[in-house]
Amino acid sequence: MTSPPCPLTTTVLREQVQVHVQQFVAEQAMQLHQISPLLDPLAQAIHTLIATGKRLRPAFAVWGWWAVASPTQREQREQVIAACASLELLQACALIHDDVMDASDLRRGQPTVHRQVEQLHRRQGWQGDAANFGRAGAILLGDLALGWTDQMYFSSGVEPQTLLRAKPALDAMRLQVSAGQYLDVVAQASGETDQAALERVLDYKSARYTVQGPLQLGGLLADAPQPVLAAYATYGQAVGRAFQLRDDLLGVFGDPIITGKPAGDDLREGKRTLLIAYALTHATPTHQKEVHHALGQPDLDAGQVELLREILIQTGAVRHVEHLIATLRQQALTTLAQLAPLDPHAHQALEELALAATQREH
Amino acid sequence: MTSPPCPLTTTVLREQVQVHVQQFVAEQAMQLHQISPLLDPLAQAIHTLIATGKRLRPAFAVWGWWAVASPTQREQREQVIAACASLELLQACALIHDDVMDASDLRRGQPTVHRQVEQLHRRQGWQGDAANFGRAGAILLGDLALGWTDQMYFSSGVEPQTLLRAKPALDAMRLQVSAGQYLDVVAQASGETDQAALERVLDYKSARYTVQGPLQLGGLLADAPQPVLAAYATYGQAVGRAFQLRDDLLGVFGDPIITGKPAGDDLREGKRTLLIAYALTHATPTHQKEVHHALGQPDLDAGQVELLREILIQTGAVRHVEHLIATLRQQALTTLAQLAPLDPHAHQALEELALAATQREH
Repeated sequence: MTSPPCPLTTTVLREQVQVHVQQFVAEQAMQLHQISPLLDPLAQAIHTLIATGKRLRPAFAVWGWWAVASPTQREQREQVIAACASLELLQACALIHDDVMDASDLRRGQPTVHRQVEQLHRRQGWQGDAANFGRAGAILLGDLALGWTDQMYFSSGVEPQTLLRAKPALDAMRLQVSAGQYLDVVAQASGETDQAALERVLDYKSARYTVQGPLQLGGLLADAPQPVLAAYATYGQAVGRAFQLRDDLLGVFGDPIITGKPAGDDLREGKRTLLIAYALTHATPTHQKEVHHALGQPDLDAGQVELLREILIQTGAVRHVEHLIATLRQQALTTLAQLAPLDPHAHQALEELALAATQREH
Repeated sequence: MTSPPCPLTTTVLREQVQVHVQQFVAEQAMQLHQISPLLDPLAQAIHTLIATGKRLRPAFAVWGWWAVASPTQREQREQVIAACASLELLQACALIHDDVMDASDLRRGQPTVHRQVEQLHRRQGWQGDAANFGRAGAILLGDLALGWTDQMYFSSGVEPQTLLRAKPALDAMRLQVSAGQYLDVVAQASGETDQAALERVLDYKSARYTVQGPLQLGGLLADAPQPVLAAYATYGQAVGRAFQLRDDLLGVFGDPIITGKPAGDDLREGKRTLLIAYALTHATPTHQKEVHHALGQPDLDAGQVELLREILIQTGAVRHVEHLIATLRQQALTTLAQLAPLDPHAHQALEELALAATQREH
């Protein structure tokens, strides 16, 4: 038995998300320009930021919708893609503000927004502290992107009642990402090592925001029945946690050319992850001391990064996290398989997303 | 001829705005608490911030609506007040982020949010830089408040089609306040003295965001005819500019006990206002040098503040700005008077708001 060809493919979806976000941002850039050409650098910075990206959130949302959408609902495909593409603007805000909080220099291989705006201040030879100015510009651009999120969502062309039905999922995502980020900075500050507390950070900052939330949004847009939404929650939590665990591994072991971030960046920032917590629990006293000493030192050199990596491998922390990822992925795939009959194209796409999100190199 | 008693009064409106905002924030605080009690300090900080305030934006919005609402529309009074009260959350975000950008210590007589969160870090004896931690908490709380704005707006109980009709006014306010703030930091950094450029900052940062935007929102909620919206724009620009000019005077001459900010705070921050620009144009070369030297010095003492105040008075800058305020106020009142027949209670309330916004002491 073969299914008819699906008008929605992963490639089509990515392209359409791209077109919709770029078009919306271009319109807003025009508005900013009309207020004053002095605002052009902010428009340019967000244009650059949204030009790339994995588009994971819109993908989960659109496939979560398509999986259970009726033939009539599917006629609104393009409008729903536009509504879900608005999640890229929420993500843009999260990245811009996160980079300010972490004082990061690079994002997606480019200078972060606050560094770009700081450079503008220097080039213009303006008065006052350039770094402060850069941070101010980035805070305000993040605010713009956050405000644009629901504006784009409501201007997508989907019927208002449908959009309002799914809006609580968008509201929840905004709450969860900010709450999760705060719990993350608290975990770094308090040197959190409790596994349950670190898992909560994972859940809110990543799993709910990256996978569960978008899937719920898609499900609600299609008016999915409760069992489907529940299965999305299970699949979403598993994939989302695995996604963040992969991120934690990449933050230590990732190739800077592929990740676009300096090697071992998370170690210099002193990120408290499950990877680190496991290593600390299982390291020799000498190695524990080494980790405590080195973690969060902004000037860690390549040799020190290498030593920390060795400890993470020797303690079995890397193996443990890889095992967790594999288990979570399997749990996600089983949940999907049990949710028959799902549209076969959506099923396949959600399987592929589960793999892509957890096996990625950046 | 006497009008029937109006069920809506300025006092009733303020109280209801207060109730609605506090209730909404209390619900969100519960959500945050359920995620983790570690989030309680953020909830406490926004609770304190929204406990006071002039409630100007909801007042302009509700009176702008009431002025032209039909008897049937007026039955939705409470819901419309709830929708307009959401503007207090947008304002909360603007204040929290503005205070981070200006590194301000006090707001409404209390420590600013980033200082409160910084203090939390110190009290807990956490690792890392307390000031950075405070800024991160404030950025995230501002993001929460910004996300809550449209969430509260859409959960007000007003019909979706009405809310969507007026939503572009909310979108415009969000764009304008961030754009205006950015133009403001650029003006400080570049030492802007051009009158037209400074007026544009005024317009976007204050006039549109504080008066015009809320009035448009109210007008659109009532489906007001175009001439009314145009008159609101004229009245709003005049009152809004006068409001900001009064703010500029208070930033230099305000009583710290009443304003809740240190005396001469704007001088230490080096704010580029029309008041300063006028003084620089009309000062003697010696005084010009004094102003250029002192403006933006974070450690200005009381004597230096007094000297700058003297210069602002002697150059006629204060008289000039007071004259501008009076002219703008008169223009606003004339516009209102020509917009007959406006509901007499709303007319009176908008007259009083024009006076209150421009004669206030804080």
